[in-house]
Amino acid sequence: MRGFFYPESVAVVGVSSSPTNLGQIIINNLVNFGFKGKIYPVGPKGGRLGDLEIKESIAKIPAPTVDLAILLTPAAAVPELLDECGEKGVRRVIVSSGGFSELGEERLSLENKVLETLKKWKMRMIGPNCVGTINLETGLCLPFVPMLRNIKKGGISILTQSGGVGFEYLQICCDEGLGINKFVSVGNKLDVGENELLEYLIEDPLTTTVFLYLEDIKDGRNLMKIAYSSPKPVVVQKSNVSQASFRVGRSHTAALLNDDRVVKAALKQAGIIRVRDSHEATLALKAFQMPPLRGNNLAIITRSGGHAVVAADACSEFNFHLPELPSKLLEEVQKEMRAGVIKLQNPLDLGDTFNPSLHPKFVEIALREENIDGAVFIASGNIGSGDEVKGVLQDLVRVAFEVGKPVALCYCAYFPEAGLSFLGTLKMLVPLYTSPRDALKGLAMARDFFARQKSRAPASVYGVCQVS
Amino acid sequence: MRGFFYPESVAVVGVSSSPTNLGQIIINNLVNFGFKGKIYPVGPKGGRLGDLEIKESIAKIPAPTVDLAILLTPAAAVPELLDECGEKGVRRVIVSSGGFSELGEERLSLENKVLETLKKWKMRMIGPNCVGTINLETGLCLPFVPMLRNIKKGGISILTQSGGVGFEYLQICCDEGLGINKFVSVGNKLDVGENELLEYLIEDPLTTTVFLYLEDIKDGRNLMKIAYSSPKPVVVQKSNVSQASFRVGRSHTAALLNDDRVVKAALKQAGIIRVRDSHEATLALKAFQMPPLRGNNLAIITRSGGHAVVAADACSEFNFHLPELPSKLLEEVQKEMRAGVIKLQNPLDLGDTFNPSLHPKFVEIALREENIDGAVFIASGNIGSGDEVKGVLQDLVRVAFEVGKPVALCYCAYFPEAGLSFLGTLKMLVPLYTSPRDALKGLAMARDFFARQKSRAPASVYGVCQVS
Repeated sequence: MRGFFYPESVAVVGVSSSPTNLGQIIINNLVNFGFKGKIYPVGPKGGRLGDLEIKESIAKIPAPTVDLAILLTPAAAVPELLDECGEKGVRRVIVSSGGFSELGEERLSLENKVLETLKKWKMRMIGPNCVGTINLETGLCLPFVPMLRNIKKGGISILTQSGGVGFEYLQICCDEGLGINKFVSVGNKLDVGENELLEYLIEDPLTTTVFLYLEDIKDGRNLMKIAYSSPKPVVVQKSNVSQASFRVGRSHTAALLNDDRVVKAALKQAGIIRVRDSHEATLALKAFQMPPLRGNNLAIITRSGGHAVVAADACSEFNFHLPELPSKLLEEVQKEMRAGVIKLQNPLDLGDTFNPSLHPKFVEIALREENIDGAVFIASGNIGSGDEVKGVLQDLVRVAFEVGKPVALCYCAYFPEAGLSFLGTLKMLVPLYTSPRDALKGLAMARDFFARQKSRAPASVYGVCQVS
Repeated sequence: MRGFFYPESVAVVGVSSSPTNLGQIIINNLVNFGFKGKIYPVGPKGGRLGDLEIKESIAKIPAPTVDLAILLTPAAAVPELLDECGEKGVRRVIVSSGGFSELGEERLSLENKVLETLKKWKMRMIGPNCVGTINLETGLCLPFVPMLRNIKKGGISILTQSGGVGFEYLQICCDEGLGINKFVSVGNKLDVGENELLEYLIEDPLTTTVFLYLEDIKDGRNLMKIAYSSPKPVVVQKSNVSQASFRVGRSHTAALLNDDRVVKAALKQAGIIRVRDSHEATLALKAFQMPPLRGNNLAIITRSGGHAVVAADACSEFNFHLPELPSKLLEEVQKEMRAGVIKLQNPLDLGDTFNPSLHPKFVEIALREENIDGAVFIASGNIGSGDEVKGVLQDLVRVAFEVGKPVALCYCAYFPEAGLSFLGTLKMLVPLYTSPRDALKGLAMARDFFARQKSRAPASVYGVCQVS
């Protein structure tokens, strides 16, 4: 699978100098993302594209072979082009073209022809009907829609059966400051499926969390085995769970309907974190940006009594415990209180103290207690100027990593100076929730994942369960 | 209740020229929001505050009386100040000061003294332990934290038992482009409670939707009656539903714990839209920015097959029906398709058409069908430049209001040109969801509200149900 992410040369097949040609966009993406390898545009009409010459055929590429070819041509031309690739020695191909079995069963023969050709050349293929791969480590960027290098590099790798949903996640990760490592769109999964790629991404040393968007699961037994033994969190949005979507899924990525009750039970057993939508996905992905949560006891620190109430409700909803806070902490807080109109307990309301720069210290005292496994900090009410707010949140991240316990950061304040763009800036800075319930939902997903990691039955026990 | 929102003169009691004085902030807010009425700062030390002279007592205000006084002084001083207000003829008072029964039962005698004084002067009071009122129609702005006039004026009025949660909602409404009309924080609800204010806001011609954040419900029977007969949607976040939060709620706004199963059933029966958190609240508030949804049949129009699948699942989850789209629409779309690789159905995937400016026309054709009650438009995939995207979304809002049916707008695209701030700009422009499931959840809340409005049993039937 590495060849799909670390090629040193890429042929883009289906390029012309026409202004509406989509192949050009792939070339531009590679250039914009700073891809260091060789780029070979290929298209029957030849011509030029900036500094690059469009070769009339794959055979005419002036190199002994190419590591990876991406095809964006009418579906009918694909088998022949695969043959040309084979002759050139190309062993990794991505077929972005649509027009295969997602349009109906009469296209199955075309797919069979593709499969035969792959076999003949011992070639591996991602797609068809996909948007390719991205690797932020190398600048590989193969989608046929324009991408900009505003994507933050990090540890999350995305595997998606839908290009559109994959792009949605790229944008969400941009907006939420979540760093991406690799991206792969698998489309119809005619050859390479989610399992091989998931296995690769789990082993990839630069990936820390894997996110999957799936419309069907082709080999559930194997998926379960892979996820079960993964030391890294695997977060899954599995759609196509209703009769209403089945019809659509079939014509989108030729996806089959799995019985969702079976899917649900199986994913849970395998320790997969299942999310229902992109909002829920971000809650999990943010939680995994923090040190692991290894227990059920939380300290909640806020500046608003209302958020203390809301957070306590959410603790109850997600089965967290709020132990008494250490007296040392309460004494420190007491010293800072102005009007004495707030009772000190857990959740701890700091609304009557007026030195927000002390908040990270308070959180640290709580986190260093043995019976506290993590904290939630709710920035509600005024905690100073924009720079002061940023400083407090960054210090809290530092504290979390120093102590090795998570602090879920939550911003729920009216911020008069800047509003909207300020919240956006904060999100780029730290993993930030915008409601206490969201923070606790995220922490619950992390807690359940790490609890399983600690006390796990041997993988063989789960081998009996099968999804599809 | 009108007196709390439309005073022509306001006395702010507890102002000094010290730089840490919170009363000053109230004065600044009134000035910044352009309050046209008279403003009288009052504080025992006197002095000046910009152009305004701080009067040493309420009696010294150079006017026969004052419409509204807001008190921000130590709790113990409140009864005496209320007496001074009474003598001056003030009949509406907001007590922002904390330090009453939320700190413990020994403060109950102080509360009793307050109640006696109110009775003596036939005076009405909001609070104590609250952040006051805002009326964007008049520039009245009484919170003791700095506010900026970046709040959009609109039809949503907010009634909150927690200042902090109220501010969170103000910020969320700013970020989501949701216009506010009035805001009131009720705190301990010693005199004026949610019911009188809710009744007032429902009758207020400028309020179109009421949002309530409550930690307890004091007279459930009456709340139910008021909400039941409301032609306007009433959205409620009711917290303090667990043993964990009860302890906190008690010390925050002296709130009592209601049995949440009873609350849940009662709110539902009264047609109140209950939300679990601020995220869910925005889904409802956005839905009510659109024309009413008067049925179960939706047309879903998207540019990504994956989002078609996700949306179809959400339709199934929230019990929506996806009827066949009119052949006229499918013919129009067919003409625009380029590669012919997408099947035309409902959800309708426009990913193979390349003229996004036609999308509003397609949605309009669907909406004008008798068996279509509303639409979801999912802007996924490339629909042009930033200005083109804005144009399409604005045209869709126009179409919705022309036809009188809602279009839930959903933005799920990777937008390379601008990212973050672009999504923020779009949210300020139109009621925008960021996931199809969110859009359908919002529509479901609207559908259920309007279904009830249509076929409602007489209010007396529900009078038997009691919450607290």
